[in-house]
Amino acid sequence: MLRIGVIGGHLCDDDIAAVARRVGELVAWEGAALVCGGLGGVMEAAAVGARDAGGVVVGILPGDDIRTANPGVTIPITTGLGEARNVLVVKASDAVIAIAGGWGTMSEAALCFKLGVPLIRLKSDLQNLPSPIAETPEEAVEWAMERARERWE
Amino acid sequence: MLRIGVIGGHLCDDDIAAVARRVGELVAWEGAALVCGGLGGVMEAAAVGARDAGGVVVGILPGDDIRTANPGVTIPITTGLGEARNVLVVKASDAVIAIAGGWGTMSEAALCFKLGVPLIRLKSDLQNLPSPIAETPEEAVEWAMERARERWE
Amino acid sequence: MLRIGVIGGHLCDDDIAAVARRVGELVAWEGAALVCGGLGGVMEAAAVGARDAGGVVVGILPGDDIRTANPGVTIPITTGLGEARNVLVVKASDAVIAIAGGWGTMSEAALCFKLGVPLIRLKSDLQNLPSPIAETPEEAVEWAMERARERWE
Amino acid sequence: MLRIGVIGGHLCDDDIAAVARRVGELVAWEGAALVCGGLGGVMEAAAVGARDAGGVVVGILPGDDIRTANPGVTIPITTGLGEARNVLVVKASDAVIAIAGGWGTMSEAALCFKLGVPLIRLKSDLQNLPSPIAETPEEAVEWAMERARERWE
Repeated sequence: MLRIGVIGGHLCDDDIAAVARRVGELVAWEGAALVCGGLGGVMEAAAVGARDAGGVVVGILPGDDIRTANPGVTIPITTGLGEARNVLVVKASDAVIAIAGGWGTMSEAALCFKLGVPLIRLKSDLQNLPSPIAETPEEAVEWAMERARERWE
Repeated sequence: MLRIGVIGGHLCDDDIAAVARRVGELVAWEGAALVCGGLGGVMEAAAVGARDAGGVVVGILPGDDIRTANPGVTIPITTGLGEARNVLVVKASDAVIAIAGGWGTMSEAALCFKLGVPLIRLKSDLQNLPSPIAETPEEAVEWAMERARERWE
Repeated sequence: MLRIGVIGGHLCDDDIAAVARRVGELVAWEGAALVCGGLGGVMEAAAVGARDAGGVVVGILPGDDIRTANPGVTIPITTGLGEARNVLVVKASDAVIAIAGGWGTMSEAALCFKLGVPLIRLKSDLQNLPSPIAETPEEAVEWAMERARERWE
Repeated sequence: MLRIGVIGGHLCDDDIAAVARRVGELVAWEGAALVCGGLGGVMEAAAVGARDAGGVVVGILPGDDIRTANPGVTIPITTGLGEARNVLVVKASDAVIAIAGGWGTMSEAALCFKLGVPLIRLKSDLQNLPSPIAETPEEAVEWAMERARERWE
């Protein structure tokens, strides 16, 4: 099962949430697992979109309590690792989609380049990053799926 | 989705493998996700048993390469954390079944007591542990499912 | 600089504290760094003993706030990793001395065997472990220093 | 003992190395511990500068072998955590100085903003970061020491 990571802030406005929800839905339709940090905002919208489409949603949580997982998470990975769990979100993904996002997302995006994990951005303010920018959820998920498939060939 | 951890050595004989395989099968039939360290021996037998029964198998791997996952793993979590990933196997489980096992398993079992994660043993040589010992895979899985359900009530 | 780990419970009685304090003092006199989990009980007594003898004390803390370190810690390593930091205490030590201790200590002791880190016990209730038992702090520190020196030769 | 983190690439040219070495020297003269990732390039130059000035140098290593530590490290923390150890370099520092640097450094810098750890840059190509840029090692270390002192007041 391919694994598509979705990264983005734990708070977001309705437009960004709609985009993230659509990304989650498309990832589920592709038959890939959606990997995220398991909390609110972009993570929650993408997770709920994937779950409602019948997908598998892995939430790699900073704490120890599954009740902190957003309602879209089907498999909570309670790590107790705090922010170090961000590294796991990147490492456990075959390709990553960054949606909007602040410094936490920037840290994860930079880690993608460091580790060679394919990254595409959508509605992202992150600047000066050498990654493609998708115009639509469809384009982002198609690109991520292709790179994920290539990675383990 | 409840999460049942299975811990045990990365090498095991055929009798232990048959027991582990049966445990995996029963966990899948119960509709729970099986969580394990993703490598060989007990982990592999349990994972293959669960996957063949249509279950979800989370493999929390020490390294970065999904090709190190045993063939039963359906969701590889490549952590790059080395042995520190053992802590995650315990933390990401609602209850744990220890099958046979050496020092790595003992370390995880002790962590269960430290953290309050319910643990039951099956064909286990680990001594002086204050946890029940199951006679059969059926008994182990039934006990683990009950404790897992109670834990988040 | 050699690194001697001291593991033990975060609560202990006065007799155990006196033993731990003496162990810390001897480690400092040997010119080794004392590595511990940075909190109370055995960790604190050993740390204070080492610091008062002019030694270096590394406290590998579960949280993010240096104010949780006991007063003997001279170098707080705030990890935010929760209990996963226990693995680091073992990994960052060339040899380990276990004093008394409960399940957390047992988990770390088992990890020593798994990883091949030399372990000696002092006033320890931990049973069925294949490690020597020292009668005195002097014997424990001498043994640990010898094993630590051998390890990197 | 205050803890000043130095982050930067594991490869660097002679000019950057001279700057990093001077930073290390100044940190040691201030009586602070220098925290770094323990490998080559900027990490090594800063570590050797601090050690030669009599300072304490904590190297938080990705692997398990102290022989991977650069010769300036006086206290190797062998974590076996891979790139997740980068998070610990940031978390175990009261303030951070970024010297030059690539994507790994960018990931750590972004984490500083996320976590509220004071960051100053020196000879840094990292763009669009809301942190001051120092012209000299003296300015960087003075700023970092001030922020580190303020942080725990």
